[in-house]
Formats: sequence, C-alpha cells, structure tokens
Amino acid sequence: MTRATQFKLGVLGSGKGSNFVAIADACAAGRVPATIELVLSDLPEAGILDRARERGIRAEHLAPGRYRTRLDEAAERAYVAGLQEAGVDLVVLAGFMRILKGDFLGAFPGRVVNIHPSLLPAFPGLEAWKQALDHGVKVTGVTVHLVDAGVDTGPILAQAPVLVRDDDTPETLHARIQEVEHRLYPATIARWLTDTFGACARGPNLEE
Amino acid sequence: MTRATQFKLGVLGSGKGSNFVAIADACAAGRVPATIELVLSDLPEAGILDRARERGIRAEHLAPGRYRTRLDEAAERAYVAGLQEAGVDLVVLAGFMRILKGDFLGAFPGRVVNIHPSLLPAFPGLEAWKQALDHGVKVTGVTVHLVDAGVDTGPILAQAPVLVRDDDTPETLHARIQEVEHRLYPATIARWLTDTFGACARGPNLEE
Repeated sequence: MTRATQFKLGVLGSGKGSNFVAIADACAAGRVPATIELVLSDLPEAGILDRARERGIRAEHLAPGRYRTRLDEAAERAYVAGLQEAGVDLVVLAGFMRILKGDFLGAFPGRVVNIHPSLLPAFPGLEAWKQALDHGVKVTGVTVHLVDAGVDTGPILAQAPVLVRDDDTPETLHARIQEVEHRLYPATIARWLTDTFGACARGPNLEE
Repeated sequence: MTRATQFKLGVLGSGKGSNFVAIADACAAGRVPATIELVLSDLPEAGILDRARERGIRAEHLAPGRYRTRLDEAAERAYVAGLQEAGVDLVVLAGFMRILKGDFLGAFPGRVVNIHPSLLPAFPGLEAWKQALDHGVKVTGVTVHLVDAGVDTGPILAQAPVLVRDDDTPETLHARIQEVEHRLYPATIARWLTDTFGACARGPNLEE
C-alpha cells in the first residue's frame, strides 16, 4: 500500500473503545486503507481516549455542553472544527452516546458512519441486544449505517446476523454481538472508502 | 415411530401450497411426528387443495364470507368446526391470506402457528421480502411464530437469516426466503409438538 491510498478517519466514542481498537488494528495491519487522525470523546474518563493515546493517536475530551443526549451548539462547532482541521474523510461513531444534529451532519454530508447492535430497522435506540432478548427473537445482529438526522435510521451499508441462544443473558448475547461488530465495522469502512473514493484516489485530499 | 407419537395437523392456505408440500413430505418421511388430517382454503382454485388431494389428504374450500381480509363470523365457525371434527392438535397457517380473530384463536389457544417471510418484528404485513429490499437491509429472513390477535405479533418459535445480495430482485430474494421456509417450518413444527406434548404422548387425543 502506498501513501496515496491512505484516507483519514476521525473517531467519536464515549466508552471503552473496543470498536476503535478493532478499527485501529485493521488500519495498522493494512486491512483498512486509512489512518485514524483524531479521537474525540464527550467523557473525559472514556477508555477510548486511553486506547488511542497508547497507540500514539491524538485523543481529546471535548465537553458536550448543556444537554444530556446531544451536543449543544457550541460543542457541535468544536467537534466539527477539530475534525475538519484534522482533514478527516470519514467520521466514525464508535459507541458515541450523543445524537448528532443537522449542523454536524451538514459539515460531513454522507460521511458519518455508525454501528448499531441489532438488525435495523428492528430495535433502534439503547441496549438493542436487551430489547431483542426481551422481544424473544431468535436472530439479531449488527448494522453499519450512514448517519442521518433520525435515530438509527440512515442508509444501511452492511449487516450481519447473530443467532440468539436459548440460554443467552443480555451479557452473553452482547458479547457475541460485539465480536461480530469488531469484524464487520473495519471491513465495511474499508469497502466504503474504496467504493466512495476509488482504490487509488485520496478523495478530498488528493492534492497532498 | 409408533402410532402413539402421531399428532394431527390442520393446514390453512390460500396459495400454491409450497409450505404445505414441505410439511407433508416431512410428515411422510417421519421428520415431523404428525399426519395432516385436513387442508382448508378460502379460495376454491388454490393450488394447495390440489397438492393435498394428490397426497390423499382431505382438502376443502370453505367460503370466507363477506369481508376482504378476514373470515366473517359464520365462516370462522365453519373453519373451527372442521378442524375440531378432525381432532387437530395444531393449526398450521401456510400462506393463508385471512386474519384470524379472537373466536378462532380462542378455539385453539396457543395452537395456531404461522410463518412470515422476514425477521419479525421487522417488516410485518404483506410482501415482507419487498419491504426488506425497499428498506435496503442486508439481512432478512424467516420467522415461525404462534398467532395472536395482532398481525404478525405472536410469540416467536424460530427464526433463520437470509442474506440479501446486491443484485437481488424481489423475486430472487423471495425464492431464497422460501427455500429457508421449507426447511424451517417442518423442523419448528416437529420441535413444537415434542416440546408441547412430549415425545411419546398424543396430547389431547391420548385416549385413542
């Protein structure tokens, strides 16, 4: 792989960062033709910031502002500015627990991707693995989708099934879903980058 | 297999009867511990009636009455009477295009099973494979569930995934879903009969 095929990712997360680690490892191994330029978190203690710094990746806490479930206007501007300064081609949500509104999405049109622990449109929202178990489904899964202004409603890029076992608890089911997430998310990002920008072009930063 | 392990099924259908054929073949091969006692259809020309008669299985058209999407009260009584006289342990819906109401379901509590061509709760209702394709999902599938008073809402007995291909049309996707239906439905009926009545008991007709 040459430098000419490297795209730039920005990752947003609020948790331990297990999907970040899967993506970072896939980038390092050349399975995703990208580098992670920046990791941002709304929580100063989020493990994802430590996992990024361990890898020498720039990682910052940016306060979310005065709302509970989304970024306020000033915070949204700060996130957008950070990602734009880093020149990211794709914004990757990896357990980011804040809803992004139109101003953020308008800054990265069709360029924000999320992963959700169910087969959307089934079980949008929080703790989707628990919703699936409570509903009694026998098959659930993982969805990677582009983010739009709805909650878990954007165009689907990829899905993979996970079979529910009779003796599953929320914890055991969630663990198997996460294993699938860690394979599906890097593979889908790699395919999206290639499909969107072509295998050889650097897309928006072609001039570099 | 001894006669003591044979349960009795009644099948309702409005179409070609491909799921009926799969279940009848599984019964004949001993993979489902049951015999199909009676097939009823709301359409006199439905292929399912021919498929049943070819196999020597009693098959009748019973007029649905004055509504378009469900059986009217007199029709419902006629269907219930036919199935009860046949002594069926389980009512199997196989492409039956009429909604069953409380009086029918009350006559066979927890004993009516249906198959639906999606992973419920996603895409209830008609042409679920087309709904799935229109939504852009990458995984859909098949659900076998007990019937309650809602539309495609009863307790789920079994599900199986079907992967959507980039070049799928409604027809190609539906064909692959039906292949899965023809395996899942007999297997689920067999398991339900054994789980519900035990491997050796004849359940409600034990005295025979």
